[in-house]
Amino acid sequence: MSESFFDRHAKTLNDAVSAIRRRTYWSAYPEVPSGKIYGETAKGDGLAAFQGRLERAFEIDQPGTVGRIGDERSPFGLSLRITYPQPDLDVLVPAAASAMDGWRSAGARERVGVCLEILHRINKRSFEMASAVMHTTGQGFMMAFQAGGPHAQDRGLEAVAYAHEEMSRCPDSVIWEKKVSKTDVVTLEKKFRILPRGVAVVVGCSTFPTWNSYPALFASLATGNAVIVKPHPGATLPLAITVEIAREVLAEAGFDANVVTLAADAADAPITKELVTRPEVRIVDYTGGSEFGDWVEANAKQAVVFTEKAGVNSVVIDSVTDLKAVTGNLAFSLCLYSGQMCTTPQNIFIPKDGIDVGDERKSFDEVAAAIVGAVDWLLGDARRGAEILGAIQNERTVARIEEAASAGGKVLRASTPVTNEQFPDARVRSPLILEVGADREDLYMREVFGPIVYLVATNSTDEGIRLAAESARKLGAITAAVYSNDPGVIASAEHALTSAGAAVSCNLTGQIFVNQSAAFSDFHVSGANPSGNATLCDAAFVTGRFRVVQSRTLVNR
Amino acid sequence: MSESFFDRHAKTLNDAVSAIRRRTYWSAYPEVPSGKIYGETAKGDGLAAFQGRLERAFEIDQPGTVGRIGDERSPFGLSLRITYPQPDLDVLVPAAASAMDGWRSAGARERVGVCLEILHRINKRSFEMASAVMHTTGQGFMMAFQAGGPHAQDRGLEAVAYAHEEMSRCPDSVIWEKKVSKTDVVTLEKKFRILPRGVAVVVGCSTFPTWNSYPALFASLATGNAVIVKPHPGATLPLAITVEIAREVLAEAGFDANVVTLAADAADAPITKELVTRPEVRIVDYTGGSEFGDWVEANAKQAVVFTEKAGVNSVVIDSVTDLKAVTGNLAFSLCLYSGQMCTTPQNIFIPKDGIDVGDERKSFDEVAAAIVGAVDWLLGDARRGAEILGAIQNERTVARIEEAASAGGKVLRASTPVTNEQFPDARVRSPLILEVGADREDLYMREVFGPIVYLVATNSTDEGIRLAAESARKLGAITAAVYSNDPGVIASAEHALTSAGAAVSCNLTGQIFVNQSAAFSDFHVSGANPSGNATLCDAAFVTGRFRVVQSRTLVNR
Repeated sequence: MSESFFDRHAKTLNDAVSAIRRRTYWSAYPEVPSGKIYGETAKGDGLAAFQGRLERAFEIDQPGTVGRIGDERSPFGLSLRITYPQPDLDVLVPAAASAMDGWRSAGARERVGVCLEILHRINKRSFEMASAVMHTTGQGFMMAFQAGGPHAQDRGLEAVAYAHEEMSRCPDSVIWEKKVSKTDVVTLEKKFRILPRGVAVVVGCSTFPTWNSYPALFASLATGNAVIVKPHPGATLPLAITVEIAREVLAEAGFDANVVTLAADAADAPITKELVTRPEVRIVDYTGGSEFGDWVEANAKQAVVFTEKAGVNSVVIDSVTDLKAVTGNLAFSLCLYSGQMCTTPQNIFIPKDGIDVGDERKSFDEVAAAIVGAVDWLLGDARRGAEILGAIQNERTVARIEEAASAGGKVLRASTPVTNEQFPDARVRSPLILEVGADREDLYMREVFGPIVYLVATNSTDEGIRLAAESARKLGAITAAVYSNDPGVIASAEHALTSAGAAVSCNLTGQIFVNQSAAFSDFHVSGANPSGNATLCDAAFVTGRFRVVQSRTLVNR
Repeated sequence: MSESFFDRHAKTLNDAVSAIRRRTYWSAYPEVPSGKIYGETAKGDGLAAFQGRLERAFEIDQPGTVGRIGDERSPFGLSLRITYPQPDLDVLVPAAASAMDGWRSAGARERVGVCLEILHRINKRSFEMASAVMHTTGQGFMMAFQAGGPHAQDRGLEAVAYAHEEMSRCPDSVIWEKKVSKTDVVTLEKKFRILPRGVAVVVGCSTFPTWNSYPALFASLATGNAVIVKPHPGATLPLAITVEIAREVLAEAGFDANVVTLAADAADAPITKELVTRPEVRIVDYTGGSEFGDWVEANAKQAVVFTEKAGVNSVVIDSVTDLKAVTGNLAFSLCLYSGQMCTTPQNIFIPKDGIDVGDERKSFDEVAAAIVGAVDWLLGDARRGAEILGAIQNERTVARIEEAASAGGKVLRASTPVTNEQFPDARVRSPLILEVGADREDLYMREVFGPIVYLVATNSTDEGIRLAAESARKLGAITAAVYSNDPGVIASAEHALTSAGAAVSCNLTGQIFVNQSAAFSDFHVSGANPSGNATLCDAAFVTGRFRVVQSRTLVNR
């Protein structure tokens, strides 16, 4: 059964393996939410499926369910009231551990086949997933479809491709012959077995529940571990659907469905600390805020821990050719999903004496005004603004905007509530843009998550590069953007910022944005600064999830 | 210069890369200490070079030297009295960190070339190294030559091959093109840079200073890190020579020689704890005893930590065809280097009702007597015995033998001093062999390092397999051996013991031994039980030592 899963998806796998080597553009799952691709009824079916989930118990037939739990609230104001199985970890975790036996014995090829089929079925459900992601994270529909659906699936496939490659490096068996004297040869038959590390826990986040979890889920699964998915209590549904699909495929393929389980909790009854420190748990993948991520890194000592946390992303503007093209591009990056991406810029360093724009000189104030103007223009169309901004996932982010507005700096653009015509109760705020001097490190040299932007007036481009690199090193940074017409400045910024572990984007304009990261080509998070210790996706992301243990037998010839 | 190093050794590298994929027998450096291979004067030259080191200051021109330190004592009784630079870590560690700049920028190919040349030059010095290893570890000359020389060099080359492969996975740059609308294509030029993690510390052990350190040294070096070599105070010379050669090649190739430095200390003034917890230190490789290894794992939190510690290795005897062939093979494994290998068996599980030997039945006592007899025979020839046993590296091991003899169990073979004709002051003890019941877990279910062997009388082979697996899981185990004529027993033992993370050898007789591990084919330590968290050598051993950080630039077309 699952042998045919592998064969059925062999071309997808081969293309993915080729893509992670070439790193040119490639995608397995179409990002366009089109009926021509997903089926003419897919959109309606997906919406209906999502609506059918609402105000009901989400049933998962897994051991150790002792009650119901769940308190997701749609940032768009929709009533969700879905409950999930509340787990007794003393039952659920051992069940996961014992489910591993058959999964491990099945071998790499069979497991990879099952993973590919799970991804394939998740892809077919992309419209349902889009609504689930939209109404838990606050992403606009298009973004929820793409980032929550096909882009997340691509990231999952990428992890399967890495796992497949790394598990294929060593043969299953070999005949080893050594001449030990003029007449004697020793012959050994050696067998190499892949030994998964143990139970894996994937801790999801509230903003990208699928995109940020799929690499870990599929990397651990393909390498033979059982996976307990621990969603954020504010974004459980997308991962509950994922777990449901995974269990369905596992059971069809003849495996214990408890190879993948859900450990839901609620904000007022969290279980993550207990779960990630259990002795059976040998792998923890965490995505989310830095504070709790640091706790997991320091305390889950019985496990290998992979983290994707947060940081302070910077933009350095030195000189540009077309200011409108640059500020238009930046404005989209600042507004997209209300700055709630871990890749959104927070600090924009601009020389206080202004910059060259083509042959002209523009003052700091003119550049700042152009950025503010570009944001205003982008949000000027109510429908477009609502789609780009989405909604604010967490009430605390709204409070953070208000605190930032009064903490200091000159408010160049106030954050205001924005009306979403389709969802009048949606929690929407436009970006706050502040101007500060480079000496106000107390304000900008800290993470202020959400639609909050500092334009930092520096003495020079060099100072901006230095401050951007310093903040990456100290506070972490996932991305950085640089604008300059001077190749020397670009080279210097590339060196300083990549050395500080930030992925650098240079001179982006048009339809490509600093906060976008493409599977199979872009490495998301470097692991080389405090924003995380792992990369999505590289060999290091999968090699620690399994071991090769050998046996060798003397062959008498 | 070093470009030619890469070209000069390209075939060796290609063969090594091919070998780690095929895992059939291969070796780059000849293990036979023959003048035909190493040059007719090599043996004499090596001995003279070693003797020229004695009772002198070993000079290394590195920063932060504040005095002289060293208290190595030859287990063979030779006077060494060599002193090494005593480092001020506040100077040495920053010097290592700053030496990394040029090394990192040089790129993977250049670094790999330098590593290959270092190994090549170390190989030419194998006779000098043999004496250095012999008179610090206590290994007999032949073993010191092979394990301290070519076998260690092979392990180093294996690490370079893994590093080369992993660094080659991603292109240096690529043009990425994505169609974003019917008419628009976004084109990015992406560059991928290898970012080493930081300063690496390699903590050597007293028994295999080169074999156990070279994989770490070369894996960290090839991936762009600076390496501070921290030898065991009892076995400094082999690594000091290694550092000397590495610095010579680095300088010739135009690099800062402080990319490789020595941090020597003494037993009464240890520096390892301070060194491995310094903030600049981002990689720690530790080989040695479990207690200190556990401390390093728990405390060097600022670094990634790779450990190869100790454990309790088991043999399970179920049935054999030729008892003499089996006990002869086992006796060699028990005697070789006086049981001071991390791969030497400690516990031999034998059913108390005896075993089948061909068509005959032999009682437990007969099997035990055969093992004792085989050891007696092997050591019966004084010269052969002295060469196999070598000498006891540490006085505490002698004390441990005496403690074990009186702690409990029936002494089947007493440990006695053995005279080494060539070195009358050598510290040599023959193996102690004790008989215990399976219920005496207090005696055998603990690590007793040295020439101490328990023959454990079990109720059945199954009980023996269970106890062997349990001790591997609880205490760690690097190797296990099984003897049976029943394929079902072999399969069951293979499953139980590999699942517990021990590398299993089945039915070994003749010139192949459970405690031998061949580079390019055998994985040494699985990382899947408490005997260590890393494997020599696999992809996981190198992928954590560097990161890939990218930059991408919009290309206007």
